Amino acid sequence: MARKKIETSSNLKIIPLGGLEQIGLNMTAFEYEDSIIVVDCGLAFPEDDMLGIDMVIPDVTYLKENIDRVKGFIITHGHEDHIGALPYVLRDVNVPIYATRLTIALIEHKLEEHSMKELVKCKVVKHGQSITLGQFRIEFIKTNHSIVDASALAIYSPAGTVVHTGDFKVDYTPVFGDSIDLQRFGEIGKKGVLALMCDSTNAERPGFTQSEKTVGKTFDNIFAEHTNTRIIIATFASNVDRVQQIIDSAYKYGRKVILEGRSMLNVIRTAAELGYINIPDNTLIEIDQIKNYPNEKMTIITTGSQGESMAALSRIAASIHRKISIEPGDTIIFSSNPIPGNEKAVTKVINELSMKGADVIFQDAHVSGHACQEEIKLIYSLVRPRYAVPIHGEFKHRKAQAKIAVELGIPKEDVFMLSSGDVLEVNQEAENAEVTGKVLTGSVFVDGLGVGDVGNVVLRDRQILADDGIVIVVMTLDKANAEIIAGPDIVSRGFVYVRESDELMTEANEIVNEELQIVLDRGITEWGKLKSTVRDCLAEYLYKKTKRRPMIIPIIMEV
Amino acid sequence: MARKKIETSSNLKIIPLGGLEQIGLNMTAFEYEDSIIVVDCGLAFPEDDMLGIDMVIPDVTYLKENIDRVKGFIITHGHEDHIGALPYVLRDVNVPIYATRLTIALIEHKLEEHSMKELVKCKVVKHGQSITLGQFRIEFIKTNHSIVDASALAIYSPAGTVVHTGDFKVDYTPVFGDSIDLQRFGEIGKKGVLALMCDSTNAERPGFTQSEKTVGKTFDNIFAEHTNTRIIIATFASNVDRVQQIIDSAYKYGRKVILEGRSMLNVIRTAAELGYINIPDNTLIEIDQIKNYPNEKMTIITTGSQGESMAALSRIAASIHRKISIEPGDTIIFSSNPIPGNEKAVTKVINELSMKGADVIFQDAHVSGHACQEEIKLIYSLVRPRYAVPIHGEFKHRKAQAKIAVELGIPKEDVFMLSSGDVLEVNQEAENAEVTGKVLTGSVFVDGLGVGDVGNVVLRDRQILADDGIVIVVMTLDKANAEIIAGPDIVSRGFVYVRESDELMTEANEIVNEELQIVLDRGITEWGKLKSTVRDCLAEYLYKKTKRRPMIIPIIMEV
Repeated sequence: MARKKIETSSNLKIIPLGGLEQIGLNMTAFEYEDSIIVVDCGLAFPEDDMLGIDMVIPDVTYLKENIDRVKGFIITHGHEDHIGALPYVLRDVNVPIYATRLTIALIEHKLEEHSMKELVKCKVVKHGQSITLGQFRIEFIKTNHSIVDASALAIYSPAGTVVHTGDFKVDYTPVFGDSIDLQRFGEIGKKGVLALMCDSTNAERPGFTQSEKTVGKTFDNIFAEHTNTRIIIATFASNVDRVQQIIDSAYKYGRKVILEGRSMLNVIRTAAELGYINIPDNTLIEIDQIKNYPNEKMTIITTGSQGESMAALSRIAASIHRKISIEPGDTIIFSSNPIPGNEKAVTKVINELSMKGADVIFQDAHVSGHACQEEIKLIYSLVRPRYAVPIHGEFKHRKAQAKIAVELGIPKEDVFMLSSGDVLEVNQEAENAEVTGKVLTGSVFVDGLGVGDVGNVVLRDRQILADDGIVIVVMTLDKANAEIIAGPDIVSRGFVYVRESDELMTEANEIVNEELQIVLDRGITEWGKLKSTVRDCLAEYLYKKTKRRPMIIPIIMEV
Repeated sequence: MARKKIETSSNLKIIPLGGLEQIGLNMTAFEYEDSIIVVDCGLAFPEDDMLGIDMVIPDVTYLKENIDRVKGFIITHGHEDHIGALPYVLRDVNVPIYATRLTIALIEHKLEEHSMKELVKCKVVKHGQSITLGQFRIEFIKTNHSIVDASALAIYSPAGTVVHTGDFKVDYTPVFGDSIDLQRFGEIGKKGVLALMCDSTNAERPGFTQSEKTVGKTFDNIFAEHTNTRIIIATFASNVDRVQQIIDSAYKYGRKVILEGRSMLNVIRTAAELGYINIPDNTLIEIDQIKNYPNEKMTIITTGSQGESMAALSRIAASIHRKISIEPGDTIIFSSNPIPGNEKAVTKVINELSMKGADVIFQDAHVSGHACQEEIKLIYSLVRPRYAVPIHGEFKHRKAQAKIAVELGIPKEDVFMLSSGDVLEVNQEAENAEVTGKVLTGSVFVDGLGVGDVGNVVLRDRQILADDGIVIVVMTLDKANAEIIAGPDIVSRGFVYVRESDELMTEANEIVNEELQIVLDRGITEWGKLKSTVRDCLAEYLYKKTKRRPMIIPIIMEV
């Protein structure tokens, strides 16, 4: 993919690790001579075909191999797809973490859960401040996003400056704190920026993302219209501003508020401690007090807006929540959009709630946390980078941003659609930028306590087991006499309902017996041959009878 | 659920079989004294948690038990969710099938694939015609839908008339044939209709579904704008009118057309034979001729608009299609909306196409085949039923229609939200209608050749296998001496990558050995006890070490 020659020797290298093909694995290394810094360290949730996998994290082999040069992690904000892999990655790459206050608080909570808090150095950086790590200086710039304390980064190196937006939107009227620091983007741009790495998530959407404040108005309207019912609102635990606005509406309409869901309680507690949320006295109540208030005085803010099966709202909908049960007339608001892939799970929850007589509201109770096309154009116009490197979002989203960059006058060959592991070398002294190589990266599966011990072989086996189950054939062989002295016994699981399969299994047993006898009669007692005989004749028979291909495991014991 | 008393004795019974909780399993029995007729016989595609299942069909136990009274199947149109279960259900309930011409042709093709065509009686009915089956007369009424030849039904019984819309929309300017026969709906309504069973799929959407013809204009625009590239359009094979319009645009812009995908070829061939599609001479070419024409003279109409992994477009996107490969600049149009649950698969295909340099277009190239709120109101206003029974669509969609019915003046207690198996009794002589009972129904899983041999036990096993794999422990026991003479050997699949697990498995083996020895030393050789000993100690050890819970199968052989 190298498209042109870069002639300078000491260049800034930009290396996306793990993250560009799988949404969520956000991690980019920046390298200049003896210094490497790493921006973000996210996890991804497993795809449908990653059976039994709990989460996916980036493969950091490259960082491990260059651990002496790695100076630190810079984290742009506190969402799981930016901080989630830290407890795993830090085991191998234990370097200091730099981020804003809420981000550090959420990271520390996570490290505590993994009993790692004492082992890792975390440092709070304020917006407007810079830190120096090796040959890099990194400035944190205030942005807006669906979690407070989000930052863009200006990364200064001897080879030039890169601006990395993180996830962002432009909110001129944020609920908490300041609007994105557009002046600073302009100032840095004016001094000359080599590359802009900009959030692509909404690059297919025209226009401008609405202010978070507009959702507050919707809540007010909904609360005004539903004065006689309980109101239950599902949203993202990390969206502190959203929760603030729900609490504001509840307070205004004289309702108490219950927070439900472990991550909701955790984030809001942290945000309250840091002063990022303002909860009027006597508004929050404990869930055990629910019986003391009439429905029309009650608001429940809950997790589960994505239909996650173990989250509070899903358990409420399925009538397996210990403390909350739906009553006819309950008003339920989804203050969220389904993340791609979650549509069906969300719909299932809505149908369950609806069957119990609840009134489910979706409209206007959510705005995105990501920049749409006009906001992306605004950032490009302030920064005016020489090169564009679209990040964050699926390939099609990044491609949509590439198109915008070209429309704004950046030559097509200066827009880089990187793949994971690509080493992009840039230098303000050079005529061109160039992808000069590729480092080993990709994704690593986490399953239970295992990190990386489930790979493609295990997954392929799980897929076969999931599709058609397993048939096990065991026998004990007296090798000296080439004689089967016990078995063959056939055991199956996940293949066919046992009572129905009596005849099938009896016949299968006969066929295995016959075929084995033929081989043994020839004096063959080699395990490999016996096993393949069993496997072949059984697979053929079962496929003929059922058109299924279960995994077949022959096990031979010897006495 | 019985809400009021129905006093008459001979009533019309309306019984949804299989279909109301699972989208696709459309089947309703209508019963009056000695006569039963069945409307539609659809299949559903498996939910995510139905591992390895190929499809889901309705449980027709009730029809089997009353086979002497079942007079026939009435099929409203040729979509899989209305005809798909026929080859399975007919094995037990072989009664004649009545439908319009294209519908019968598609059913016959399906029966032929199952080598059943000679065994089943199929009869073509024209719109406007009626058939008499036992005490029922059934009239076929012309409607519009995303497949031609769709029908609503007027079902006349001595207890009164039911109007069943099937899937429908109102298209004043259809591509082929007449508009929906609104006059006849009005005429029947004027004479008095007891119950209206109306399509709810789009009942949450305000307004009026656009005419299929509007998509033709979009195609013309896209063809006019893309005169230099190949155009590939993915759509539903059964949407003959859509294919007609694509062919019309291709012809107008001097392009050849290739049809790709087995079901696409099958449906369009059938439609052409029956005169439902008009293909200009020398427009269609075979796929082998693809090399003879430049890209800008080529249009490919393909299956795979839902991201189905084996469909043509997915294979093209994944570069595993034998004859077609994406070239940079190809224009690809999705003439479809993702069906809920397919969003991620569709997105995957788009990203793959996009990475290969194709330009993917989604906008305005699709309209729904289902009635929106204003169309539903129109049908209610023409039919003016005494009772409303919303059908087709998820619970939330049916509930949305119920709300519309109430808005139109039908008393809330006369709107029936039925569950599968509910027996709703209605009679024009009676004061009320009432759910008087419930018959056995539900869904049956089809897996390979097996119909109903995979149930919840097998599925639960598949889920465990899929999540954490299997660990098998085999041993041979000399019962006389209470001694293990071979094994225990431990074999695992889908649990953990073998090389990584050496130590784990060695230690597991030691633990099993020790625990077994303790039991055997006590003289216990009862299989149940030995197996539970193995299962318990191994489960505990493996969970402690991995936080996973694989299926553990102890197998004991005896000599």
